[in-house]
Amino acid sequence: MKRIAIVGATGMVGRAFLEVLEEQNLPDCEYTLFASAKSAGSELDFGGRTYTVKELKEDSFDSGFDIALFSAGASISKTFAPIAAARGCVVIDNSSCWRMDPEVPLVVPEVNPEDAFENKGIIANPNCSTIQAVVALAPIHRKYGIKRIVYSTYQSVSGAGVKGWQDLENGARAFVEGCESELQKFPHPIFNNCLPHIDAFLENGYTKEEQKMVDETRKILHDQNIAITATTVRVPVFSAHSESINVELLRPYKLEEVRELLQNSEGVIVADDPQNNIYPLASTAAGTDEVYVGRLRRDESVENGLNMWVVSDNIRKGAATNAVQIALLLFKGR
Amino acid sequence: MKRIAIVGATGMVGRAFLEVLEEQNLPDCEYTLFASAKSAGSELDFGGRTYTVKELKEDSFDSGFDIALFSAGASISKTFAPIAAARGCVVIDNSSCWRMDPEVPLVVPEVNPEDAFENKGIIANPNCSTIQAVVALAPIHRKYGIKRIVYSTYQSVSGAGVKGWQDLENGARAFVEGCESELQKFPHPIFNNCLPHIDAFLENGYTKEEQKMVDETRKILHDQNIAITATTVRVPVFSAHSESINVELLRPYKLEEVRELLQNSEGVIVADDPQNNIYPLASTAAGTDEVYVGRLRRDESVENGLNMWVVSDNIRKGAATNAVQIALLLFKGR
Repeated sequence: MKRIAIVGATGMVGRAFLEVLEEQNLPDCEYTLFASAKSAGSELDFGGRTYTVKELKEDSFDSGFDIALFSAGASISKTFAPIAAARGCVVIDNSSCWRMDPEVPLVVPEVNPEDAFENKGIIANPNCSTIQAVVALAPIHRKYGIKRIVYSTYQSVSGAGVKGWQDLENGARAFVEGCESELQKFPHPIFNNCLPHIDAFLENGYTKEEQKMVDETRKILHDQNIAITATTVRVPVFSAHSESINVELLRPYKLEEVRELLQNSEGVIVADDPQNNIYPLASTAAGTDEVYVGRLRRDESVENGLNMWVVSDNIRKGAATNAVQIALLLFKGR
Repeated sequence: MKRIAIVGATGMVGRAFLEVLEEQNLPDCEYTLFASAKSAGSELDFGGRTYTVKELKEDSFDSGFDIALFSAGASISKTFAPIAAARGCVVIDNSSCWRMDPEVPLVVPEVNPEDAFENKGIIANPNCSTIQAVVALAPIHRKYGIKRIVYSTYQSVSGAGVKGWQDLENGARAFVEGCESELQKFPHPIFNNCLPHIDAFLENGYTKEEQKMVDETRKILHDQNIAITATTVRVPVFSAHSESINVELLRPYKLEEVRELLQNSEGVIVADDPQNNIYPLASTAAGTDEVYVGRLRRDESVENGLNMWVVSDNIRKGAATNAVQIALLLFKGR
């Protein structure tokens, strides 16, 4: 019997944890759901039974959990992940809090599964936009080496939580019904707009989201020499992030080899038949666990250049699915 | 008295020609509106009077026009632009038909106005996504030299004409009202989606739109040595294209110098105060004639690297405004 805690169970990623766990139908697992005092007491249906959400407290982990899946924001993770870890539980944390801590492995199971076993009680789940990128890039990096990456993202509102989702839904409704809508999350309307602003701005002019893509890609691929830059943009899409990825490889490649390599890569679906209008789309990826790669073509503007278009559901593979996959990896062992 | 013909007057760009001409209120101009047989006979209000749209025919230009603004698609331009030019009229053509013809100047008035006077009866108006990019890039190219450009675009549906606009509008309505909508223009839903597919696919895996950005940027900037690659994407926005532009300069630059250079550039508005949530937005640019530049920041992943976010109304500066500005340039003379 494994005991699993879900922290932040009522949030968007928390609910996706439950959805993915229900689909996986793990044998011999027992679940306890936690949330803030505000959401405690609410009921959630999961795996054929109804759970009452408990309030997260300092003693919540005293009863002994094997795994805790956290998605309740960085400040909750900062306080409670060490408490849980000290009680012998392995925390798989979806916040940005621990990701760049040298003591904490940052894991994408298709890319660096071995790192998960080096944990000291906390494993970080990477940023959504980074996860899908490295699933597509890791096989290419292993074979040809990556010199430089230019990321431009097209990120969905589900990454901004329930209020982000509502801003788009209310914006669409206001447009259709000819009324006004008030924003709850974004500083500007997201319906009928693209916002080059995800997370807070840093001193260097980049957003935290852009900096995460740079730092986390290097950490997951175990290569601090990869030159990376990013522009991250929120677009009026509910689910699934799309990414325009321009890559410069260290060694020459054949396009057909890259395609074959990706076709044989775990977690990747190559959707690349443009003449028949087949390429990765948010509408295809939403609700699924795979990373879709297409628009593969040689970039003639630089030596060994490659362009690709990468799409995945940011709440599933970009958060909940990846965390559950890490848990399964730990259960299975090396 | 100048005589001006508007060809394709009932289309989306045609109507924008009228809107811009009305705002400019040119003295001593007389207008004749043309469209296909299907739209001929319809009435358009413009400059305080009502015009009956005439059918475009081989003898339409016999009566002697000074300028003809064409936006009726490449096949109409191919047939009728030479006919008009042979009658002594200067055609300013918004289609892709003549752009790469070495005999035809491709003009953005802020960038290469002198080229307009080298015309042999036809001047091409560049592709919308290229116009806004070169307005932002030309001052930088003049001062520092551009080595390489990586474009990723976020293009609005108005670039796909009335049917593209309706696909987004109907998609939003279907979402809000919980019904189905049928697509008229795009191969996949554009509401709640990003389509990495603008114009037809070429043998090399690029779309024509991507190839246009490469070829037209070089032609307008008079520099075949600039290395360029592009990924062009349709997003669920009605008006104004956004662009993530990554540039590698030939010579070192200071970020503050670039900002000042752009602030002093014709047709450019620098919107770049991220700490106060100020950056270029489609919602700000729509309906205006300027090119908005922001998110200016050093790209540390390459020598002399620079990232920028460039937004402009694709139907105004990206099409109608640019064409009218070319006409004004011709009227004014060198």
